Amino acid sequence: MGALHKGHISLVRQAAEENSHVFVSVYVNPTQFGVNEDLDSYPKTWDSDMAQLKELDEELEKSGKGRIDAVFAPTTKTMYPTLPPDSTLPGTGSFVTITPLANLLEGQSRPVFFRGVATVCTKLFNIVEPERVYFGQKDVQQTVIIKRMVQDFHMNTEVRIGPTERESDGLAMSSRNVYLGERRRKTGIVLSVALGAARAAYEMGKTNRDDILALAWDITNMMNIGQDELPVEKQAQFEVDYISLADPDTLEEVETVDPKKGAILSGAIKMLPLEATVDGEKLGLGNDKVPVRLIDNLILKPKA
Amino acid sequence: MGALHKGHISLVRQAAEENSHVFVSVYVNPTQFGVNEDLDSYPKTWDSDMAQLKELDEELEKSGKGRIDAVFAPTTKTMYPTLPPDSTLPGTGSFVTITPLANLLEGQSRPVFFRGVATVCTKLFNIVEPERVYFGQKDVQQTVIIKRMVQDFHMNTEVRIGPTERESDGLAMSSRNVYLGERRRKTGIVLSVALGAARAAYEMGKTNRDDILALAWDITNMMNIGQDELPVEKQAQFEVDYISLADPDTLEEVETVDPKKGAILSGAIKMLPLEATVDGEKLGLGNDKVPVRLIDNLILKPKA
Repeated sequence: MGALHKGHISLVRQAAEENSHVFVSVYVNPTQFGVNEDLDSYPKTWDSDMAQLKELDEELEKSGKGRIDAVFAPTTKTMYPTLPPDSTLPGTGSFVTITPLANLLEGQSRPVFFRGVATVCTKLFNIVEPERVYFGQKDVQQTVIIKRMVQDFHMNTEVRIGPTERESDGLAMSSRNVYLGERRRKTGIVLSVALGAARAAYEMGKTNRDDILALAWDITNMMNIGQDELPVEKQAQFEVDYISLADPDTLEEVETVDPKKGAILSGAIKMLPLEATVDGEKLGLGNDKVPVRLIDNLILKPKA
Repeated sequence: MGALHKGHISLVRQAAEENSHVFVSVYVNPTQFGVNEDLDSYPKTWDSDMAQLKELDEELEKSGKGRIDAVFAPTTKTMYPTLPPDSTLPGTGSFVTITPLANLLEGQSRPVFFRGVATVCTKLFNIVEPERVYFGQKDVQQTVIIKRMVQDFHMNTEVRIGPTERESDGLAMSSRNVYLGERRRKTGIVLSVALGAARAAYEMGKTNRDDILALAWDITNMMNIGQDELPVEKQAQFEVDYISLADPDTLEEVETVDPKKGAILSGAIKMLPLEATVDGEKLGLGNDKVPVRLIDNLILKPKA
């Protein structure tokens, strides 16, 4: 979807290490945005995107590995050649749906999201016919759904997942981070901290849901209380949408982690608009007036 | 779906004339049957199917044209590798939906039908990766939906349509015709007769919906009345599901046929179970105790 950051670039680099020819698609797909979501304001940074890809391609030229053959940036008329793209439910058009996976977690807040993703990816796969497709671990539910889609429809491609790239304080890189001014940016790490604490509990031998998630909830609750105690011009309020401990294939919530299978620990928080700002404060794109949804996840790996 | 008849064989022959390698899929796809439809009783005639294909392939060997390379007869576990096939709505699983086309005409009586068709065809196309795919004109809505699906999803295949094969009295060949005993078989031609009359009106210059369809309705009404007047042991009652005059791309009903576009004239009738049978009467498979839905269509071609 463009608005490229280091996470995307590292995925393209991985693709070039594993393949001789790399196609990059840059397309802000309307059908994966709900009618009240941020399609119109989603960051579009074409010049910066191309500069980053060009820089990477120069690096690849020297490395003797695969190269970026093309950037595929289609029009919406190309991607939706007959009916206009529809983000309503049930909506009209040609769609791929992957349920019940698409209805869980992110799908609960964003009911059309994965229909749009599965649909546009099917089209992209059919157009490019790639031997391998690359997705980032950060959108873990997307990776599970795309894998399921490839398996169920016998699509002739291999799904490869690249690791989540993070800022030095642990915040997962996201195109939406540009909306976070200094204050919201600082509070935004709560999710990765909470998930990290939960993973630590698993690593220390806990397998029970409550034992694993307790610390994560303690951290988010403490941070919520902490925000309430601040004066309004210092607050960066957030709401936890979910913290999930789920089966890695079905994404269903688990009561106990099977150490042979591991689990997916994931969460979403909504950074609320700042209620008051201070002169000279570093604000994000849009002056921190829009809510920003942040997601993150960690894989609890199977134990031998 | 197997239960091969001359219509299927003529499609395979056409494929062999236009291609060097032909794959035939034989798979009774559960997701296109509604929960109350005839999945379990759908005719399965594997030995006859293979005999017909072998005979055709011997003919093809002599002709020097393409040959039948393989019959692909997968298990349901192959076609639905993760979740069991689901025929309910909304249902769970990985599906392709093509709306609003799938909700019209046949879709009104069979709401899951085209979801099942689009889903299984996507899988078959991905497995075989055919340069061309062949569908029979008899299932006209299916042809429109498959063409739309290929266009919308940029599937790398060409959709070819073979003409409807008919019995000498005009009845469109169908795997379900085996359920028609002599009596229902004879009445069953009402649909092709009615559509033929409507097409004749178009050929004679009528473009108005009522002018084109009047004769078709007269014929079905007359046949309904005629059945009522017969003693019960001679009756073969039927109900008209729909008679449609529709735009060839959108399948929406038209008030006037645009001679530049033409139209699709189609219909469905339900042959009801016989209320009484007579000793020695030639009965169909299942002794004419099950209702049988028959469909047919004629293309009103554009006029120069």
